[in-house]
Amino acid sequence: MTPVRRSGPDLTEAIMRTTLELGQELGYAKLSIEAIAARAGVGKHTVYRRWSSKGALLLDSLLSRGGSALDYPDTGDLRADLRRQIQEAVGLLAKGPLSPLFKALVGEAQHDPGIAAALNERFIAPQAAKTVARLEAARDRGQLAPDFDLDLAMAILSGPLYFRLLITQEPLTSDYVDRVLDALFAGMGPRP
Amino acid sequence: MTPVRRSGPDLTEAIMRTTLELGQELGYAKLSIEAIAARAGVGKHTVYRRWSSKGALLLDSLLSRGGSALDYPDTGDLRADLRRQIQEAVGLLAKGPLSPLFKALVGEAQHDPGIAAALNERFIAPQAAKTVARLEAARDRGQLAPDFDLDLAMAILSGPLYFRLLITQEPLTSDYVDRVLDALFAGMGPRP
Repeated sequence: MTPVRRSGPDLTEAIMRTTLELGQELGYAKLSIEAIAARAGVGKHTVYRRWSSKGALLLDSLLSRGGSALDYPDTGDLRADLRRQIQEAVGLLAKGPLSPLFKALVGEAQHDPGIAAALNERFIAPQAAKTVARLEAARDRGQLAPDFDLDLAMAILSGPLYFRLLITQEPLTSDYVDRVLDALFAGMGPRP
Repeated sequence: MTPVRRSGPDLTEAIMRTTLELGQELGYAKLSIEAIAARAGVGKHTVYRRWSSKGALLLDSLLSRGGSALDYPDTGDLRADLRRQIQEAVGLLAKGPLSPLFKALVGEAQHDPGIAAALNERFIAPQAAKTVARLEAARDRGQLAPDFDLDLAMAILSGPLYFRLLITQEPLTSDYVDRVLDALFAGMGPRP
């Protein structure tokens, strides 16, 4: 049991913490607002007043953890900086204890347009903007082709990782991240 | 109502057809085995004898349509052949009337390991193998760098498309497919 003080921010924080604890124990499919409320020691209407669905509550709970950690360093070495940030993101989203809940949330987004929009607006788009800003700084220094589309570069960095995470479910190894970075910089046409 | 003859393959085919019809009408979340059985004019145990879950039934139903259409031509022009196959896949999975059901199935795979495994084994892996075979033929003709990792190339072709389809939900335009192909061949390092 998580003891809960019944003032606003503490209560909100306690419900979100309970959501992640119980979600890790039960898995998303078996998680329910009723069970979260019971574990947190509040009535289910207290939860429903703040969140309209289990998915919305999970999204807030996940965003309350770690999202801000995924900033890019700028040491001047683009490849090293991308590598470090991607490894951190992989650690958090694909390997950490919250990974199954993150995947479940993306799953939920496939049939809940509200979750899909909120996930994009509050997590994916801000992360993409950080990637593009780091790439832009490198392009301005001549480290990337001047005509290259930075939004696409972001998708080439992210896409193969999400493809493994969500579709093929293969492990996201450091070696794989390096291979994606190699391909991004060098392309695969015949070399002169 | 779809009239159903009660012999094996006809019955299986009728249940799968009904699943896709009703799935398009109701959406995946509201689709149920009970409703499919009622529409097909069979008992729900008849459905459960063949499929253990709604997800398993949807997977079979989707695979019974169109999967074999996604073969690669080999005209000798690698880029044109990739482009044509990708446009067909995008048409089927991301734009066609079955697209919401395909996305829902990928969503289901995020919390059902059996669905995830079956989706990979019966759809993703065979499609990936076709892509790799087409790339390999091109590499053997010197159209790709000899040391390039073809599995990774497959992920760079697929990943950004699934990223848009499942995560950002942006449209998969022909222009976007062309940009992914450009990046795959040319990379984004500074040009000499």
